[in-house]
Amino acid sequence: MNAGVIGATGYAGAELVRLLSGHPKIEKLYLSSVSFEGENIDEIYPNFLGRISCKLQKAEEVVAAADVVFAALPHGIGEPFAAACMERKIHFIDFSADFRFDGDEQVYTAWYGKSYKYPELHKNSIYGLVELNRQKIKTAALKGPVIIGNPGCYPTGGSLGAFPALAKGLNREDMPVIVDAVTGVTGGGREPSRSFHYAECADSVSPYKVASHRHSPEIARNLAAMAAAGNNPAPSLIFTPRLAPVNRGILSVIYIPLKERWRVKVNNANLPPSGEIEAKAAEIRKIYSDFYKDEPFVRVLPAGLTAATNRVRQSNFCDICVHVDLNGSTLIITTAIDNMVKGAAGQAVQTMNVLFGFDEKAGLDMIPALF
Amino acid sequence: MNAGVIGATGYAGAELVRLLSGHPKIEKLYLSSVSFEGENIDEIYPNFLGRISCKLQKAEEVVAAADVVFAALPHGIGEPFAAACMERKIHFIDFSADFRFDGDEQVYTAWYGKSYKYPELHKNSIYGLVELNRQKIKTAALKGPVIIGNPGCYPTGGSLGAFPALAKGLNREDMPVIVDAVTGVTGGGREPSRSFHYAECADSVSPYKVASHRHSPEIARNLAAMAAAGNNPAPSLIFTPRLAPVNRGILSVIYIPLKERWRVKVNNANLPPSGEIEAKAAEIRKIYSDFYKDEPFVRVLPAGLTAATNRVRQSNFCDICVHVDLNGSTLIITTAIDNMVKGAAGQAVQTMNVLFGFDEKAGLDMIPALF
Amino acid sequence: MNAGVIGATGYAGAELVRLLSGHPKIEKLYLSSVSFEGENIDEIYPNFLGRISCKLQKAEEVVAAADVVFAALPHGIGEPFAAACMERKIHFIDFSADFRFDGDEQVYTAWYGKSYKYPELHKNSIYGLVELNRQKIKTAALKGPVIIGNPGCYPTGGSLGAFPALAKGLNREDMPVIVDAVTGVTGGGREPSRSFHYAECADSVSPYKVASHRHSPEIARNLAAMAAAGNNPAPSLIFTPRLAPVNRGILSVIYIPLKERWRVKVNNANLPPSGEIEAKAAEIRKIYSDFYKDEPFVRVLPAGLTAATNRVRQSNFCDICVHVDLNGSTLIITTAIDNMVKGAAGQAVQTMNVLFGFDEKAGLDMIPALF
Amino acid sequence: MNAGVIGATGYAGAELVRLLSGHPKIEKLYLSSVSFEGENIDEIYPNFLGRISCKLQKAEEVVAAADVVFAALPHGIGEPFAAACMERKIHFIDFSADFRFDGDEQVYTAWYGKSYKYPELHKNSIYGLVELNRQKIKTAALKGPVIIGNPGCYPTGGSLGAFPALAKGLNREDMPVIVDAVTGVTGGGREPSRSFHYAECADSVSPYKVASHRHSPEIARNLAAMAAAGNNPAPSLIFTPRLAPVNRGILSVIYIPLKERWRVKVNNANLPPSGEIEAKAAEIRKIYSDFYKDEPFVRVLPAGLTAATNRVRQSNFCDICVHVDLNGSTLIITTAIDNMVKGAAGQAVQTMNVLFGFDEKAGLDMIPALF
Repeated sequence: MNAGVIGATGYAGAELVRLLSGHPKIEKLYLSSVSFEGENIDEIYPNFLGRISCKLQKAEEVVAAADVVFAALPHGIGEPFAAACMERKIHFIDFSADFRFDGDEQVYTAWYGKSYKYPELHKNSIYGLVELNRQKIKTAALKGPVIIGNPGCYPTGGSLGAFPALAKGLNREDMPVIVDAVTGVTGGGREPSRSFHYAECADSVSPYKVASHRHSPEIARNLAAMAAAGNNPAPSLIFTPRLAPVNRGILSVIYIPLKERWRVKVNNANLPPSGEIEAKAAEIRKIYSDFYKDEPFVRVLPAGLTAATNRVRQSNFCDICVHVDLNGSTLIITTAIDNMVKGAAGQAVQTMNVLFGFDEKAGLDMIPALF
Repeated sequence: MNAGVIGATGYAGAELVRLLSGHPKIEKLYLSSVSFEGENIDEIYPNFLGRISCKLQKAEEVVAAADVVFAALPHGIGEPFAAACMERKIHFIDFSADFRFDGDEQVYTAWYGKSYKYPELHKNSIYGLVELNRQKIKTAALKGPVIIGNPGCYPTGGSLGAFPALAKGLNREDMPVIVDAVTGVTGGGREPSRSFHYAECADSVSPYKVASHRHSPEIARNLAAMAAAGNNPAPSLIFTPRLAPVNRGILSVIYIPLKERWRVKVNNANLPPSGEIEAKAAEIRKIYSDFYKDEPFVRVLPAGLTAATNRVRQSNFCDICVHVDLNGSTLIITTAIDNMVKGAAGQAVQTMNVLFGFDEKAGLDMIPALF
Repeated sequence: MNAGVIGATGYAGAELVRLLSGHPKIEKLYLSSVSFEGENIDEIYPNFLGRISCKLQKAEEVVAAADVVFAALPHGIGEPFAAACMERKIHFIDFSADFRFDGDEQVYTAWYGKSYKYPELHKNSIYGLVELNRQKIKTAALKGPVIIGNPGCYPTGGSLGAFPALAKGLNREDMPVIVDAVTGVTGGGREPSRSFHYAECADSVSPYKVASHRHSPEIARNLAAMAAAGNNPAPSLIFTPRLAPVNRGILSVIYIPLKERWRVKVNNANLPPSGEIEAKAAEIRKIYSDFYKDEPFVRVLPAGLTAATNRVRQSNFCDICVHVDLNGSTLIITTAIDNMVKGAAGQAVQTMNVLFGFDEKAGLDMIPALF
Repeated sequence: MNAGVIGATGYAGAELVRLLSGHPKIEKLYLSSVSFEGENIDEIYPNFLGRISCKLQKAEEVVAAADVVFAALPHGIGEPFAAACMERKIHFIDFSADFRFDGDEQVYTAWYGKSYKYPELHKNSIYGLVELNRQKIKTAALKGPVIIGNPGCYPTGGSLGAFPALAKGLNREDMPVIVDAVTGVTGGGREPSRSFHYAECADSVSPYKVASHRHSPEIARNLAAMAAAGNNPAPSLIFTPRLAPVNRGILSVIYIPLKERWRVKVNNANLPPSGEIEAKAAEIRKIYSDFYKDEPFVRVLPAGLTAATNRVRQSNFCDICVHVDLNGSTLIITTAIDNMVKGAAGQAVQTMNVLFGFDEKAGLDMIPALF
């Protein structure tokens, strides 16, 4: 099978090229880049020398030649390629936010400042978080070509950590779920800017876009969808992103206020955690393990371990840890993903595997190194 | 005036030595170290060569010679030196947790596994967070020698961010305040260990001691004290620490659920923040600015800026930013400190300045470099 | 085929385990660890969870069960395992310095402070730098079990950069070759120590063991061997290592004074490089490219590119760049390797492939990511 | 006294502003910036908030108001300001390369692509490396206003390490001196670019502009000048820069082939260093110590210590270590500076102190922190 990547020279695109090059079902790659058309991908990424050699073409040529097309483009310009793929009856997997909102143009426009030019495409597009929509994706693929909106990086780590609690209705409904996530710098992409200038972000931690990051509505929608799947109401959401000086990784801490029956009565929250707290955490950890027991890329860690981004680096894993707070009122979930793999390119390959009925782990069997 | 530092070769001790060496009121330093007795401090810290030369003595010699004594020792071994200082009628500023709990031995013992051997010393010790206890420290110093429990690093950044809201009663009382703080590695001290081994913590972010860190009761007590000062009830607290690969700095995000009258009604929290949200944030920012207007080391940042640890590095500043969440329900405060300065050595010097009636900024006029 | 790894929990051992787990010819792993016997490798390295699960046994059990044995042990303790493997007629690949000196016990003892207890083992051991000894390794493997001394990390990057010049006799014989190499911290291993404590090596560069590092004699021997292969005399060597705050990688700069006929006459070395300098560099680059044209893991980079450790990270590549200095007198070669892969575990797998007649690239087809 | 800084918002300019703000002889600062005219310096560098507040003016206004002017501008545009200062009879200290070549326009033009528009200004400008030209600067300042060409960062660390050997004629004259320097990223300035984009330079080491960096002729001129001062011939020079992921610092290793009488006869350079080698190093270390005994900012480290950039960070020190190679033929000097302080802003303040007859250490008494 041949795969095409439009926008192959951005960070997410290049990471996808790297993963697809090692995929057992992909024979040939077709790549495009507006900025570097005519050059070879290994001139832009000399790390690929001797491993990946592929001339960068026009996007149209890629669409015409491939059996599946991935687009890693800026928001708002991928629709025509999606339309062309539908016409050619091939799947289209989009990394931008264009197809992430299940056709809710109001939200999309409010956050991204663009409008839909091909509204009909959005009616049947599917949000590509496999752990949420696996069956929907499989079913759709049986009927015809599918447009996938590949999830954002923060929504992936944030949503996976909250899903079991929301599906099972552990959360108190009148209080917000908080997702506080620390990200590495590759999320900022390949274009140089002050925010990602080495001297200004090295040896420093800072939040950004507090209470105004556009991944908020995407996470909120995911939480609502999973809550609905369990017949529970949608929780409200607070989302805070921070930047830390690491290349890859998102470490999310998710605060989920617990419903009365899941809470632990604590006499004095100023003392260290009691056995009851730990027992409750173990009970909820079991719920999480069961929930994800068939997921190939979610690892619910045993008690005693904490999620860390270097344990999932360059892999498609999402590690999840379960804790209950000292005062017994709140579930604290921590998750770690590699933002470029599970948070972008790896997840897209996973979705491709589902679309084509391949082993979901095909091309994604990387074993993370600790360093 | 002469100053003594017991435990001068740990990171906090060495940073204190560095700051005291540049203090206009300190003429001579007396330093001790159990591990390196007899050596010169510039052999242990060659960065001091040509600037600070001081033989490391016994702790007893330091206590006998100094006009004020700082102890940067492990928890549980400083009491005898405190007693000796009281006898000599000189102030004693302690970096350990021994004197941080206003004599609440139950909490201290539960978290630190030690008991008080000189209980009477704890009756009049003062927690040295100047922004909380300035007047108390001043008054006590007029009466005689004082024992100061220098605050922990997390409690400093976490408490300062929450104080104005609690003093003014902005917070909803039935919901916990959450402090989620990302720290640099110097907080782990000078002793090599796996957790701070370069290869294992570089390029990675991870939480640790989730819902079980012993700075929790210290922060909780601070929040309760400030709430009480404003005649408000103590909030419950959730505290989560994370480690990021930076040397210095703590970036805290503090979630404070707002009382009805401070909240903003939001029709659709999935849309970007409205002007009302920003107006409310501005209103609260003004409360914060007013609250801290006479504080020499707290900078409440104007709208548009975010707290970042590299803007306070090697300074005694605590930067504070004020935000209101998208759904209008929650105050989000971010604070940045240098954990070794405002979070340890600088704060101790500030307290010394208060004790002796010096200009509070003496020896602390460092201008942070961005890089 | 089954492979055994003795000393599987050190950094080099763990990296080897990771690579062997993805090797198409290895079915089962047997691992040992003195420190963690009885535990599972994924308890020591939770990054392996769900990918590699293997109980840590005794070294003797590993030797008894495997078809090839790797030892990643401290220097001076591997000989008995080598002897046992020879008895079992299986190949033994040793990561320590014990078998790197072609039986020159004087040099080994002088630098490592150990002596040979099984001198006969050293008579037929082979230094496992495939680019130097491929044919020797192949031939020996046809005759019986082989003991391989896997090269040190610095010697790999330093030697590969100098080989073509020495084989072809480009170097001036009366002047030393200088290898100045900057390494990442994983070379220091897994045991915590002050030198590799995050706070002390982050944001800093420093040389160490200047003119006294024990990789010096190993590099010198390699240079001499390659010079001899081209019927040229052994050059003298100067070697300087430096530490930089990166996890993986060695960036070597190698200064090779040029013989009269390879030099460029330069009128004024204070002016920018002339076309003649670049022409000479191109000529020598061609010699390098030809020399390495059949090597699967050496990439001689085209003019305009410079070697960088992030372009070879997590791969078995050695990137080489060729320059001639402004004054026309000196060849400047820069090389980049991943010290844990080409400088340790990857190289060992490469040698195993040669020993068994596998495709030399088997299990080593990783495509380096830039970040 | 008032000081003016033209180009105050670049990294070197901002660092200078920070240092001048703490200088005991400077009362008021006048700052200019083309990019940010009309804004306050603390809006561009919020780390300065509450410490430095100064409106950014036009360069002409700064020249008109100040008693000494520093220019931290791109190469080739500072001459008119130098001319204006001469007219106003005030000293002008220039950070660009414009006044670094003692009027050698050919070299300047060849490397920087600019020509002199005010040739007469260059006749009396002085290269501001105080350790080379202190007396010259003092004498000139007695006669009238002086134009100072503030040295480049690499030339500072490289030259200081070689000076004693060249002044005393230890070096073999027919062989080049090699300066191989690893720099931090702030040397690349404030403008974002791919080379200094966090994701591309973090966790990586790479050389750049090998055999073609424009600091080469500046270093070569310095070495020639110091050799001439000792009546020795100018050595030829090889210079290689590398980039490492640190913010501040340059670690230079300098290879100086030794003249016959300084060499040590070594029987077998493959064995560890003999006592003779160490004795020779001690002898030369003594020469270095004596040479620099009155220098306030050069620290010749005792045997056993190695230069490290984190020991001089945020200080004006240059640390120097002396070694002799294993084969006894070559002096290996390592030096560490903070490229933004001793390599730029601190050195300029030092020169100002000399020009005005201030204590040379005024405003430069920072004590480096290790982390």
